[in-house]
Amino acid sequence: MTTVIALDGMGGDGAPAIVLEGAERILSGKKDIHFLIFGDEKTLKSAVEPHPLLKKNAEICHAGQAVTNFTKPSVALRQAAASGMGLAIKSVADGRASAVVSAGNTGAYMALSKMFLKTIEGVHRPAIAKIMPTALGRSVVLDLGANAECDVTNLVQFGVMGSVLAEYSGIYKQNQSPLVGLLNIGSEASKGLIQLQQTAEILEKHVNFYGFVEGNDITKGTTDVVVTDGFSGNIALKAIEGTAHLIKLFLKESLSKYTSGKIGYMIARKSFKDLAARMDPRLYNGAILLGLRGIAVKSHGGTDAIGYAEAIKVAIELATEHKNPVDETATLSFNHTIEERIAKLSLL
Amino acid sequence: MTTVIALDGMGGDGAPAIVLEGAERILSGKKDIHFLIFGDEKTLKSAVEPHPLLKKNAEICHAGQAVTNFTKPSVALRQAAASGMGLAIKSVADGRASAVVSAGNTGAYMALSKMFLKTIEGVHRPAIAKIMPTALGRSVVLDLGANAECDVTNLVQFGVMGSVLAEYSGIYKQNQSPLVGLLNIGSEASKGLIQLQQTAEILEKHVNFYGFVEGNDITKGTTDVVVTDGFSGNIALKAIEGTAHLIKLFLKESLSKYTSGKIGYMIARKSFKDLAARMDPRLYNGAILLGLRGIAVKSHGGTDAIGYAEAIKVAIELATEHKNPVDETATLSFNHTIEERIAKLSLL
Repeated sequence: MTTVIALDGMGGDGAPAIVLEGAERILSGKKDIHFLIFGDEKTLKSAVEPHPLLKKNAEICHAGQAVTNFTKPSVALRQAAASGMGLAIKSVADGRASAVVSAGNTGAYMALSKMFLKTIEGVHRPAIAKIMPTALGRSVVLDLGANAECDVTNLVQFGVMGSVLAEYSGIYKQNQSPLVGLLNIGSEASKGLIQLQQTAEILEKHVNFYGFVEGNDITKGTTDVVVTDGFSGNIALKAIEGTAHLIKLFLKESLSKYTSGKIGYMIARKSFKDLAARMDPRLYNGAILLGLRGIAVKSHGGTDAIGYAEAIKVAIELATEHKNPVDETATLSFNHTIEERIAKLSLL
Repeated sequence: MTTVIALDGMGGDGAPAIVLEGAERILSGKKDIHFLIFGDEKTLKSAVEPHPLLKKNAEICHAGQAVTNFTKPSVALRQAAASGMGLAIKSVADGRASAVVSAGNTGAYMALSKMFLKTIEGVHRPAIAKIMPTALGRSVVLDLGANAECDVTNLVQFGVMGSVLAEYSGIYKQNQSPLVGLLNIGSEASKGLIQLQQTAEILEKHVNFYGFVEGNDITKGTTDVVVTDGFSGNIALKAIEGTAHLIKLFLKESLSKYTSGKIGYMIARKSFKDLAARMDPRLYNGAILLGLRGIAVKSHGGTDAIGYAEAIKVAIELATEHKNPVDETATLSFNHTIEERIAKLSLL
């Protein structure tokens, strides 16, 4: 069966070129994908020319307006039905596409997704989640910035939704439910934060709850899911990215400081390539807007075609019906599973 | 003039051995330091034996009780006058020592420091600050966990105190006041957080304010000082430490994966040593309890003698009167400068 993916053709720093190149890459690997690409028809038609597979497997859908990085969510909402981003999301709501990908403005993307896709029954607030590399494999981290401030219900729901995302992404240990941790700091003072205590008590009943984790547990891979508010999550994510940059810089500087370092680098090039691939942020591109009645994936705005293709892969993966690896009783769609779990939550 | 430094002889995972080894290291470099070492007299007397310089330049002060990693701050306060940690801090309050260093329990250390040293006139809440490596040099980051929740006044005061710490540590660009950034997330939602907006408006008037910074700006070195609440600061700090660990692991794994990697590593060993030295967390050991009427430095509990010696160096540095590099009108003590700046703050 062909999976239809909607793309915001004009979103992101390198749009539309990287969007189209990314989609072409996907087509060269998988044959059963069809794209709906939204944006300025003239621009897209000429930009699609160099991509033979895309020309055959994509439909260009005209949108007169574009959401830029500077468009406020409120303005994006007013222009919703005219922008490429808005129409791409709407195509999922209308059932024309199974998922949408955009590398555009995150705030506008979330606002438009809430408007067109609606939140899943019972979900108070959607979250942004990402799958990140750890010492033990991968972990789901959320929220990464959709909700700067969160209450107990938000955090509990993030734990439940994050757990479903981990299941669907194969992130769990030994056939158990994904292990969920709640981000906190070690000191007595914070453990006293009533909100986190309450969240922990409720999560204990609904997910495979590990307890509190600290900032270093994210990359350590202590748990399969790390739950936090959007403020702390965004800061942690960017601190991790920044540190990776810093160490890359230090490594380069140290290697080029001595002739022996330069020679050693040349000889060990295969290892450095291996390292670069493992740390390549493009391979972890594609954040998921969780809690919506449709699959919406956010690509990093500054990524290239390789990174954009990864975001499309995330969308395809989630749009595909899975046999739930933990509860094998049924083949369920990703969002259906979230809806069921959220419903259970409110029963107790 | 001899500077007297008080040490909590029993605090930290490797105490008293690493405390004494660290102090001995300091004495082998500087001659004008005298130590007061607090803890169980019998234990300390036998542990000090292998350290000839310390035997001459340290006084062992008996304390019958010890604050452990599991001692609650409230209990530590009750046993204050009997524990090594408490008595070490008290010796600064009594004017016997110029600064205190402990590798013990952070919560208890802060509680006891507040009790014995008192907070500086006008300071609402002391903070924990650290000097961290960045792509451009070093930056001061605070609060790192003393205050999980902060109001506008707390954050403004952290900005002012952090700025003074940066000045005294030589962290500023081109003879200007240290550039201060306020940690935030990029999204519209958070920029709306009234508290951060208000903090930014006030900081603008009192420090060389850069504006909002994000998680990746910490290691980028965008500003000389990064201000945030203790919850986000602690998470950022630990996320940075965790990422450094992860990349070190990835680097090792990639290098040992191929024979060429192993050979290249051997050849480039000098460069890898250089990298290890630059990233060595021991060289950044020594967090500062800011806002107290006395210098109190917190060593990481799990560090070794090299790291402990760095924490002592931080204490000595701050206990020494400086010519203020920015405002050269007077030679002021570190805490006197903080007191003056905090006083100015309340005038406006």
